[in-house]
Amino acid sequence: MSNTLAVNAIRVLSADMIQKANSGHPGLPLGAAATACELWTNHLKFNPQDAKWIDRDRFVLSGGHGSALLYSLLHLTGCGGLSIDDLKNFRQADSLTPGHPEYGHTVGVDATTGPLGAGCAMAVGFAIAETQLAAQFNEPGYDVIDHYTYVMCGDGCLMEGISSEAFSLAGTLGLSKLIVLYDSNKISIEGSTDIAFTEDVKKRMEAFGFGVQVVEDGNDTAAIGRAIEAAKADTTRPSFIEIKTIIGFGCESKQGTASVHGEPLGEENIVAMKKALGWPSVEPFAVPDEAYAPYRAMGEKNAAAQAKWEASFAEYRAKFPEKAALWDKFFGENADLAAYLASEDYAAYEDKPQATRALSGTYLNRIADNMPNLTGGAADLAPSTKTYMKGKGDYSAADRAGRNMHFGVRELAMSAIANGMLLHGGLRSYVSTFFVFSDYTKPMARLSALMNIPAIYVFTHDSIGVGEDGPTHEPIEQLSMLRAIPNFNVWRPCDATETAMAWRALIESKTTPGAIACTRQNLPQMAGSSDAALKGGYIISDSQKATPDAIIIATGSEVAISVEAQKMLLAEGIDVRVVSMPCVDVFEKQSDEYKKSVLPADVRKRVAVEAGNATELYKYVGLDGAMVCMTGFGASAPYSVLFKRFGFTAENVANTVKGL
Amino acid sequence: MSNTLAVNAIRVLSADMIQKANSGHPGLPLGAAATACELWTNHLKFNPQDAKWIDRDRFVLSGGHGSALLYSLLHLTGCGGLSIDDLKNFRQADSLTPGHPEYGHTVGVDATTGPLGAGCAMAVGFAIAETQLAAQFNEPGYDVIDHYTYVMCGDGCLMEGISSEAFSLAGTLGLSKLIVLYDSNKISIEGSTDIAFTEDVKKRMEAFGFGVQVVEDGNDTAAIGRAIEAAKADTTRPSFIEIKTIIGFGCESKQGTASVHGEPLGEENIVAMKKALGWPSVEPFAVPDEAYAPYRAMGEKNAAAQAKWEASFAEYRAKFPEKAALWDKFFGENADLAAYLASEDYAAYEDKPQATRALSGTYLNRIADNMPNLTGGAADLAPSTKTYMKGKGDYSAADRAGRNMHFGVRELAMSAIANGMLLHGGLRSYVSTFFVFSDYTKPMARLSALMNIPAIYVFTHDSIGVGEDGPTHEPIEQLSMLRAIPNFNVWRPCDATETAMAWRALIESKTTPGAIACTRQNLPQMAGSSDAALKGGYIISDSQKATPDAIIIATGSEVAISVEAQKMLLAEGIDVRVVSMPCVDVFEKQSDEYKKSVLPADVRKRVAVEAGNATELYKYVGLDGAMVCMTGFGASAPYSVLFKRFGFTAENVANTVKGL
Repeated sequence: MSNTLAVNAIRVLSADMIQKANSGHPGLPLGAAATACELWTNHLKFNPQDAKWIDRDRFVLSGGHGSALLYSLLHLTGCGGLSIDDLKNFRQADSLTPGHPEYGHTVGVDATTGPLGAGCAMAVGFAIAETQLAAQFNEPGYDVIDHYTYVMCGDGCLMEGISSEAFSLAGTLGLSKLIVLYDSNKISIEGSTDIAFTEDVKKRMEAFGFGVQVVEDGNDTAAIGRAIEAAKADTTRPSFIEIKTIIGFGCESKQGTASVHGEPLGEENIVAMKKALGWPSVEPFAVPDEAYAPYRAMGEKNAAAQAKWEASFAEYRAKFPEKAALWDKFFGENADLAAYLASEDYAAYEDKPQATRALSGTYLNRIADNMPNLTGGAADLAPSTKTYMKGKGDYSAADRAGRNMHFGVRELAMSAIANGMLLHGGLRSYVSTFFVFSDYTKPMARLSALMNIPAIYVFTHDSIGVGEDGPTHEPIEQLSMLRAIPNFNVWRPCDATETAMAWRALIESKTTPGAIACTRQNLPQMAGSSDAALKGGYIISDSQKATPDAIIIATGSEVAISVEAQKMLLAEGIDVRVVSMPCVDVFEKQSDEYKKSVLPADVRKRVAVEAGNATELYKYVGLDGAMVCMTGFGASAPYSVLFKRFGFTAENVANTVKGL
Repeated sequence: MSNTLAVNAIRVLSADMIQKANSGHPGLPLGAAATACELWTNHLKFNPQDAKWIDRDRFVLSGGHGSALLYSLLHLTGCGGLSIDDLKNFRQADSLTPGHPEYGHTVGVDATTGPLGAGCAMAVGFAIAETQLAAQFNEPGYDVIDHYTYVMCGDGCLMEGISSEAFSLAGTLGLSKLIVLYDSNKISIEGSTDIAFTEDVKKRMEAFGFGVQVVEDGNDTAAIGRAIEAAKADTTRPSFIEIKTIIGFGCESKQGTASVHGEPLGEENIVAMKKALGWPSVEPFAVPDEAYAPYRAMGEKNAAAQAKWEASFAEYRAKFPEKAALWDKFFGENADLAAYLASEDYAAYEDKPQATRALSGTYLNRIADNMPNLTGGAADLAPSTKTYMKGKGDYSAADRAGRNMHFGVRELAMSAIANGMLLHGGLRSYVSTFFVFSDYTKPMARLSALMNIPAIYVFTHDSIGVGEDGPTHEPIEQLSMLRAIPNFNVWRPCDATETAMAWRALIESKTTPGAIACTRQNLPQMAGSSDAALKGGYIISDSQKATPDAIIIATGSEVAISVEAQKMLLAEGIDVRVVSMPCVDVFEKQSDEYKKSVLPADVRKRVAVEAGNATELYKYVGLDGAMVCMTGFGASAPYSVLFKRFGFTAENVANTVKGL
């Protein structure tokens, strides 16, 4: 049971922060203050002196707009030295307290949240990672990984489909150490949730396989505490605790209304609130020591818990040296893997036409053999996307050591879950689906990029090469969509060597997520492909003279067509260079000198060839060049018919060059 | 109860089609044949001689990969003259039988499906439209709109979050004429649904507020028929019927396995299947008359029903002339609206700084006053996106005539539902959310474009102008993402006039969907803006000399900055033209002559200014120009701070021009 001052400290600090910024969302922090205080002062295993302790409980604030609540908690616990001045800088440039919680920016923030529901799915990812690592490392007497994942969510999070996707999977997987705290206030921005959300949430969560509890009074910290303990005691199912709250509680003139969600309370209302709450001062940001005490006491308790864990872990290291070595591979640098990725063994291939999806599967499996912490899977398409890791087991409630994930047909949650698995630490994750369905993964690919985590997206069936399945399944604009995301590398390899390099780049990346887009159809192996592909763009087949008559820039399946066009043109006395551009994003990062060596400034006759809409390639083609690309949707027919129809033939490429 | 030959005709035709194409998905058509036959021969109000009858029941095959089932049905009923030859051309170029059902391509296809779950949400849209039109038009004795919407979905559809979003809303809205037929076969591509989907689906649907029934034997057409009748009799709740089937039923050597989902059965297996089913011939595509008979009989019954409806509707027209006039506005041309949109009244504005989101709200409301069939809303953000139509009521179970939709925090389903409302006929729909969350709407915006329906997406908070909410809420790549979609027009107006023209263009569009991206922050009114904006790009402030020294191309909030830069440059003797480019997609469709008049080929000093990553503008900037755009994510701070930090100032634009 929490002390009232400690609860109200969250309300007061949040209200003051938002008022000073004249911007922010008081509704959630005020409404959920008691839940947050109870969790953070009596349950959460979190050492504010070491917010990166691997065995800490994770806390995800899925309703990221309630960031003031999290910053209040971090300040009250003393985490990362977050000061009153930091709180006063809420939502200001370069502050440690931005509008929504940002992973990697503020110490103690486990995940970037804001897009509603995403935190729920990331929490499922944390919980999965915990079980995978526990299965991998725990030994009798040494539960080196043994923690809970808490996620606080609201009505909005539960309206979003991503939470249904993620929680359905969490139930299937029996993730008993996942505890969802539902801040149930029945208010949304447009008014009462009655207008759009009258479903029986508890029943839905039961249907998903959760243990469900209800706390009728969201200020009853004793009841909240009992529910959390009961949730922890349920070792077979994830838990869902509906905690009935009043949005903006404490601010009597505004609480319970939609307007309290996202506007400052107003100075007078804050003074009135402080008085009504019995707060000892009406001064902004004035917090008595008694309010800090329970947070600091819990911090000391957790510091002691971590010290005990460290001691036990030292014993574990000594007792299980193989496990310790494996641990270092999971959590530190994997030198063996680095060497392997640079080896000829890794990049070897059979010189025959192959689909890059098949090659992707080959390289994925080679990597998996050398990278014990690689785990991932597809949204029910592994047989098509070739993303099954052979001999690595299937992750399930019965087999926590399995490395192949079965996400179900849930692209959006899959991507967020994989982000959560990465954020946990210790694992590398990948996800997969058809390239056209990257549309569904987009919001989470953006979050991967924003969080600077090296998530891997494996997309196959990457163009009209899909063929008979037709336009609903044929990507056109997806390369553009993903290339446009800042800090996200999109690879589209043309053959085995480029596929190997794409995977190598994705695996070696530390802070940039990325995707590989692979063909359904077979492609020939190119004589000119090499590890120069790691530069994103390179000359795959040069002109015979130093300054080419023209340059063809192509990616993926269009590279071979372009090299064929090059030969046709040469027979007519036109001497062109072919540049393969497997990753525009990485090419952009090369030196100007290198870029100019590939694309000399004075060669203005340039043709870009890509079976997509290829918008980014205009950057290289300029006003004097031409495009061979898609300008509309695809069609349903065998792919060879479509390639011809839409102009992806050596003849058409050659003619386009001649047209310049 | 259906005749066995009629049921098996679906199986046989589907198997033969897929075998001949050597491509396709037999699992669903064979498994769900009995359900489909029962529905189409005993319940569905669908006149194959007039597949556009407005009061027909709608049928959405959410698992669009089962297209062979739908084509079999259309052939068996005789709809659109779909012949055996058409079936033999399954999945071939230019056939009427593409890989997935395509709206507008094959007569009798109510919606394009393929992306799983989307059909479920579109069906909710159909059901909403039915209630809105019924409320608007029905009179005692004249239920001119009175039909059911059936959607057939599978496990995959129900795993997708979009179906949860849509069905939760359908329950809230009490859409009792929505009937979901769940083809429950427990098989997904990666194997048994046990690996990823063990939830209690029936309980979840009950939680959403559906009436739920189960048919234990998916070949028991009598039981299926009874369940459909019971569903129709439930007039307060939508219905969900779980029909337990065996995937690929009839092909004994493959049924019940994952492999039967998406591969041809093989000729020998098909022969064996035909024998096992007692089919009278093993020849491909041989269908006895008895198999056609029930489909044709039902067609005749429905033709008679339509004739009766036509007669009643003629009476209705005579009896309710005002309603008849309104009907014509809903279903035909609205000449008053066309005149209004071209009037000065419509475009009038107050000459003071205003946010384009506020202006968007103004023009939306003016249009709504003149367009009685406009209906729409936001994903719980109407107060922020300014998309509430004043005095037009709130759509709910209690008020079917309300035109303001409350979609809840469900961007993806919202977009699909709005597509369904459009597809129904009679209504124009719009949806709205923050621009950054256009990410969630993307998959459905793509379907709008693919279906050639004029869906309208209203996005606000369109750049780092969001300010304090920070990078999770600041669009960067969203303009690029949406512009890349074929047949989709993205408008980003710079002031009142351009906002008015953007709305006008969106409303006047017949076959191209589009979006308007609006600012959160105030913008000045531009002296040079005009209805030339309808051309997508135009000279908003020209140079003083005929051939400018340089051209600045800008959109939205960056236009005013660019005109300010123009003035600064002129003071230094540099005479530039400013082009406003509110819609790149529409500008691209103008004549070469017009485009060159705006962007003369010989003026190569060009600077594009856009507070996004602006990829598409490289097309106009070329190799000799420069960009003032975003190259990374935004930040949390007041927006004026961010505009300065990221270089969106007149000074920086002017310096960039000088740098050329």
